[in-house]
Amino acid sequence: MGVVVPLEEDRGRGHNAVAQLQALVAAEMEAVNEFIRERMASEVPMVPELASHLINSGGKRLRPMLTIASSRMCGYTGKDHIKLAATVEFLHTATLLHDDVVDESDLRRGKRTARTIWGNQASVLVGDFLLGRAFKLMVETKSLRALEIISDAASIIAEGEVMQLAAAKDTGTTEDAYLRVISAKTAALFAAATEIGAVISGRNGSEAAALESYGRNLGIAFQLVDDALDYGGRAASLGKNVGDDFREGKITLPVVLAFRRGTAEERAFWQRTLQEGNRQDGDLEKAVEFMQRHSALEDTTSRARHYGAIAIDALAIFPESEYRDALTLLVEFCINRNH
Amino acid sequence: MGVVVPLEEDRGRGHNAVAQLQALVAAEMEAVNEFIRERMASEVPMVPELASHLINSGGKRLRPMLTIASSRMCGYTGKDHIKLAATVEFLHTATLLHDDVVDESDLRRGKRTARTIWGNQASVLVGDFLLGRAFKLMVETKSLRALEIISDAASIIAEGEVMQLAAAKDTGTTEDAYLRVISAKTAALFAAATEIGAVISGRNGSEAAALESYGRNLGIAFQLVDDALDYGGRAASLGKNVGDDFREGKITLPVVLAFRRGTAEERAFWQRTLQEGNRQDGDLEKAVEFMQRHSALEDTTSRARHYGAIAIDALAIFPESEYRDALTLLVEFCINRNH
Repeated sequence: MGVVVPLEEDRGRGHNAVAQLQALVAAEMEAVNEFIRERMASEVPMVPELASHLINSGGKRLRPMLTIASSRMCGYTGKDHIKLAATVEFLHTATLLHDDVVDESDLRRGKRTARTIWGNQASVLVGDFLLGRAFKLMVETKSLRALEIISDAASIIAEGEVMQLAAAKDTGTTEDAYLRVISAKTAALFAAATEIGAVISGRNGSEAAALESYGRNLGIAFQLVDDALDYGGRAASLGKNVGDDFREGKITLPVVLAFRRGTAEERAFWQRTLQEGNRQDGDLEKAVEFMQRHSALEDTTSRARHYGAIAIDALAIFPESEYRDALTLLVEFCINRNH
Repeated sequence: MGVVVPLEEDRGRGHNAVAQLQALVAAEMEAVNEFIRERMASEVPMVPELASHLINSGGKRLRPMLTIASSRMCGYTGKDHIKLAATVEFLHTATLLHDDVVDESDLRRGKRTARTIWGNQASVLVGDFLLGRAFKLMVETKSLRALEIISDAASIIAEGEVMQLAAAKDTGTTEDAYLRVISAKTAALFAAATEIGAVISGRNGSEAAALESYGRNLGIAFQLVDDALDYGGRAASLGKNVGDDFREGKITLPVVLAFRRGTAEERAFWQRTLQEGNRQDGDLEKAVEFMQRHSALEDTTSRARHYGAIAIDALAIFPESEYRDALTLLVEFCINRNH
């Protein structure tokens, strides 16, 4: 039992991995996209303008794909997975809008953030609108257990963000404390997205638990790889869209590792640049150099691989299917992606 | 049929009016408060600290009282009205937190706003946390219709705020346009708070419609009186906590009326102070003087009285009861209050 997936670097295969999932759920994702367009409509023009800026910004729609694939793997044949997938994407988009305000971000995926175009005020309010719509959508499915899971996730995500705010700028953050933050702020929504796939299929026992575990561990792996990519990834190549976390003074796992493994002089560098927020030209390059010296990016990816392996094992209780294969390969994609 | 309530100024009676409602629901409101304290708990200390700053800031808890009284008037004997009342208060508190960020307010009811103590970032995130908790709480009641009503209200409130943002600073705003804004941003939550009282009592037909109408019209009246009080009320006495709307450049009904009725010179004043945001010492006093000259505050209160009368008539289909009396008198309180 269990598919053995070697997780060494292979970007070509990683790409095929997500393509396989995308092909499997393509028709349903088209329905999800249609639904999203329909439900972000408002007679107040700024609402769909701003919402569509982010929703159409070329994200992979990873989270709604997870809901579709999870429910199909559980044998679901109804229509509510479309609504729940749209709910998950709305919740994610609302979180991004508020995150950009909280982090004062000017760029996301190399594009101007909504707040730089429409302002912080509109970003906060349209985020609230999308949260309201997300709840409205999921109420329509009448699945109280799914409602419970998603509303729980919504609180936990916000709690994780506050936790990060409180821990922000503290270079002494432990790896455990950082994991608690990302379990809440990132992995909780992945876990909800997959667990509800089991729940609407009437699989509330070990299958719901397995999918919850799959989503949670995949989410942690995904975030850790994101953290490494923000410094150029394992290859540490400083391409575009790199350095956002550094410029925002965020403490992520690569920093936690580089700080702990660093010399007194290096620690002083991290304190100056992130704790005190005093950054100069050339500091980003120096940060990457220190990370490479201590294998911080490589080891962040190794940690991601650890959580990825747990996610794959969680799926082993499901009978073999193209959905299970695609979800398994997706873990590889998340770890080996370079963007 | 119908209780005749003369709505002329009588602050003493207005005060008794809310005291009567408070006495009727005192025990249940104690349970609501207990519930709120319990459910705003979090292992992240900043969350309850910030939430309790606002929740314990001495508001009248008008909205949750409406849910309790409405359900009891419909003969409800269960326990879920406590949870729904707490949901309504959480939603209201989340909205206030985000409003203060959007409006850049430093004071609320004469006290420092959460954002001036904990910052905008924490206010946005704790608002999101409270929204998540609100949904979690109402899911526990398993009333899908109540869930639908409240999630709908959550979207509409945010839409109303965006509408206000888009119309902000436009002194040419019509009274109709302004009413659309407050119907969404204020009255939608009042309407939801009262309608769910009927819904959980199994009164989905004309009683739910009556309570929805009561709440909506009471909410509009409440907001209009608030707008007048922000310039000192009908008496136009510039006490403390006055002038917030003016300082934030908000277009409210007193401004709409004073602008439309004003001379060219007065219109230029409103444009300079609110549209262009160029305010000087003495401008607030001048604004109040112009409003008095055109009976703008008095007429704002008259408009409020109109909506209050509709709210009272909406209740007429209910058999006489102490709850109906208290809800009727509450309209008078909302209109005649001086704070």
